[in-house]
Amino acid sequence: MKKFTSVDDIQDLDELISLATSIKAAPFADSEKGKNKTLGLLFFNPSLRTRLSTQKAALNLGMNAIVMNLNTEGWSLEFEDGAVMDGSSAEHVKEAAQVVSQYCDIIAIRSFPTLTDKEKDEEEYVINAFLKYANVPVISLEGSTEHPLQAVADALTVQEYKTIARPKVVLTWAPHPKALPHAVPNSFVKVMKKADVDFVITHPEGYNLNPEFTKGVTITHNQDEAFANADFIYAKNWSSYDDYGQILSKDPSWTVTPEKMTLTNNAKFMHCLPVRRNMIVSDAVLDSDASIVIPQANNRTYAAQAILTKILENEK
Amino acid sequence: MKKFTSVDDIQDLDELISLATSIKAAPFADSEKGKNKTLGLLFFNPSLRTRLSTQKAALNLGMNAIVMNLNTEGWSLEFEDGAVMDGSSAEHVKEAAQVVSQYCDIIAIRSFPTLTDKEKDEEEYVINAFLKYANVPVISLEGSTEHPLQAVADALTVQEYKTIARPKVVLTWAPHPKALPHAVPNSFVKVMKKADVDFVITHPEGYNLNPEFTKGVTITHNQDEAFANADFIYAKNWSSYDDYGQILSKDPSWTVTPEKMTLTNNAKFMHCLPVRRNMIVSDAVLDSDASIVIPQANNRTYAAQAILTKILENEK
Amino acid sequence: MKKFTSVDDIQDLDELISLATSIKAAPFADSEKGKNKTLGLLFFNPSLRTRLSTQKAALNLGMNAIVMNLNTEGWSLEFEDGAVMDGSSAEHVKEAAQVVSQYCDIIAIRSFPTLTDKEKDEEEYVINAFLKYANVPVISLEGSTEHPLQAVADALTVQEYKTIARPKVVLTWAPHPKALPHAVPNSFVKVMKKADVDFVITHPEGYNLNPEFTKGVTITHNQDEAFANADFIYAKNWSSYDDYGQILSKDPSWTVTPEKMTLTNNAKFMHCLPVRRNMIVSDAVLDSDASIVIPQANNRTYAAQAILTKILENEK
Repeated sequence: MKKFTSVDDIQDLDELISLATSIKAAPFADSEKGKNKTLGLLFFNPSLRTRLSTQKAALNLGMNAIVMNLNTEGWSLEFEDGAVMDGSSAEHVKEAAQVVSQYCDIIAIRSFPTLTDKEKDEEEYVINAFLKYANVPVISLEGSTEHPLQAVADALTVQEYKTIARPKVVLTWAPHPKALPHAVPNSFVKVMKKADVDFVITHPEGYNLNPEFTKGVTITHNQDEAFANADFIYAKNWSSYDDYGQILSKDPSWTVTPEKMTLTNNAKFMHCLPVRRNMIVSDAVLDSDASIVIPQANNRTYAAQAILTKILENEK
Repeated sequence: MKKFTSVDDIQDLDELISLATSIKAAPFADSEKGKNKTLGLLFFNPSLRTRLSTQKAALNLGMNAIVMNLNTEGWSLEFEDGAVMDGSSAEHVKEAAQVVSQYCDIIAIRSFPTLTDKEKDEEEYVINAFLKYANVPVISLEGSTEHPLQAVADALTVQEYKTIARPKVVLTWAPHPKALPHAVPNSFVKVMKKADVDFVITHPEGYNLNPEFTKGVTITHNQDEAFANADFIYAKNWSSYDDYGQILSKDPSWTVTPEKMTLTNNAKFMHCLPVRRNMIVSDAVLDSDASIVIPQANNRTYAAQAILTKILENEK
Repeated sequence: MKKFTSVDDIQDLDELISLATSIKAAPFADSEKGKNKTLGLLFFNPSLRTRLSTQKAALNLGMNAIVMNLNTEGWSLEFEDGAVMDGSSAEHVKEAAQVVSQYCDIIAIRSFPTLTDKEKDEEEYVINAFLKYANVPVISLEGSTEHPLQAVADALTVQEYKTIARPKVVLTWAPHPKALPHAVPNSFVKVMKKADVDFVITHPEGYNLNPEFTKGVTITHNQDEAFANADFIYAKNWSSYDDYGQILSKDPSWTVTPEKMTLTNNAKFMHCLPVRRNMIVSDAVLDSDASIVIPQANNRTYAAQAILTKILENEK
């Protein structure tokens, strides 16, 4: 693997999940693989799980992990080609990406979308600028349109908890007080299309995800119908894609409640976290045995370690 | 040891100090004990000594140390049970504590008091929420009411510098421009009650510490009287406990000066640092041979390393 | 080597460059030299290259690297002797420097100048306070008046890319929207005076550097004349030294363009980065084969590793 910025970079999902599973069984088995290699983790935005689990994954492989908060610890970056840099940006991404490549063997970067400039967000201009100018492999720690490390952890979690060969997996929109990105649902849609599951998306009208990604997936605006016989409920809020970045609804009837869960086939409840309690999901669901959000978060380490392993192996 | 959030968690102070002493003599002797273990250090507040010495202690034991500033690098946390999370808090401590437990083998956390809400502070709601929800041992890096790692370093320092079997140790209040927490004096009181010392507290009227903690300790409002024949002077400011969080006095006559020190038995001067020069203590004392604040700070490493050792040993 | 806060601390430049060259050829050859040693990196200001390359250098030597942003993560420091600390500064540098010396075997520190108080800046009051009070070797990560690690990387780069025994090296001022420090040009001047080069400085009138440093160096206000037959063009902006910290000119005719480069002897283009594109230098130069700014940045690791090596060796 030469880069990992999209679920599209996964060539064989089954093999990747199988690798993550064996890493989870023996996380320190390859603790020499990353010797004398450095992972640079660059953050433009807050992070808890991604920050800790990706560092942990690197350390498990014997890599060094250097974390940097680009906004507060470094120089403000310019992304425009040909810019006359007489403003507030002190450094062009052309130099920054090449320079970090001198010190780090793999660059991992988080950059959230603007949610106001759809075109810019869809260009993934930050991640793609690093991909373009860096001389080493680049990993997305969540970009504008995808969160692929989360998707690998999600697929691993479904694999671990499924009780039938082809489970029904439902991605449901749920209400949230703030406008949220599409990266997590986009990557979840992409990875579920690669998995052997019966996949359904449910959301209120006006909340279509990018149709390019959801093509071929069953979509319903009837949440109850979607929940019927489901084995996994994956809840997530996102802002409108068509009316870009807008909040069209905070309808509490979309909150995942114990009543809703009774419509399912004893479904497991999933969420990428952080989760707004009693907005996205009621306490009674999140605190029940049906919830697997904590083991799902735990799988972030093994997902990241599997990706780092594949990138390190490619280098040799 | 399963947790360390209070001096009350010390079962045998002599044995702990003895462990710290032997660690200090050979700090790298157990550099395999923490192999493949990760300490997560979570900070809600500034820190110099605690941040560096606890990392150093972990590294000496071969552990990985991952530091995170929760306010700026992570998500703002909700602590209320049953909250409808439609405000600014993005993640409930229930999830945060469980999630960090997936990546870290020990969680260490710093959270200062509000000094406005006495009830909330006394509940130690941050530290206790982590204790309640984390699945791994929790260490306090200073909470609302205690700073137990400091207390271990303090006890070790007294042990090292005492010249008689049962020295007289005086905790004296001293003036400061800002309202300060009670955590350091509380923990010092608790640890001195466990030590074989003649312990006296002196402070102006209105500056009683929590009487639950000071029960049985000699308290005087006459600083000179307290200093008489003292072997150790431990200076510290705290805000009023009764008139919670208020500054009742900045009386410069309580500053520790060379004149005051002449009342003692060539006492050593101690302070947890950071210290306000010429408020808490005059330059002439702090820069004299009587001051042992630097070796006291150095002992923070060995105190932390002793606690980490005991927690790691318990796990096995 | 007992400290490294100025180019003046280099006793034998050739030997240092030779050491850096051999380290670059085998960066992990001495990975036990720093075992159980800790480098503390203290930042008062933003940093990308210095932050990453110095950490990398320490890790290559088997050292632990602990990074701390003093402004946001620690206590605000007092530097005045005898201060009555009743203001916003919580800790005196006397304690801070001694305390960090308890936890770290080498202290590295970055502190930019005020550019308003010339006297204070020239005293290097931050770096020098750490030098005075620390009990371990101190390295400058860029102070008010020097950036010596950059200078070592610069000298190494000139050594690597020169095609004749005694190349002509030109330091040219170039325009910039903000007032910048003199540390980089000062250290570059100092190191070039130690190197076997034909060294010329060119800048507009009013932009003299500290004459103490430039004594004996050819200085011209005619940039074209300076560029004639040059082998290296080192561009850098600085604010006025005489009219301290002021911007006297943003004259775009001083920008390094392809036309200007044709005056040279196929010169290599150097800059310490971050660089303002199309202010300091036009895209066409920076994106050409003449530009060696990325390998120059890469050399920061080996420069730092050479300095750390010399300091570690001195300790034994």
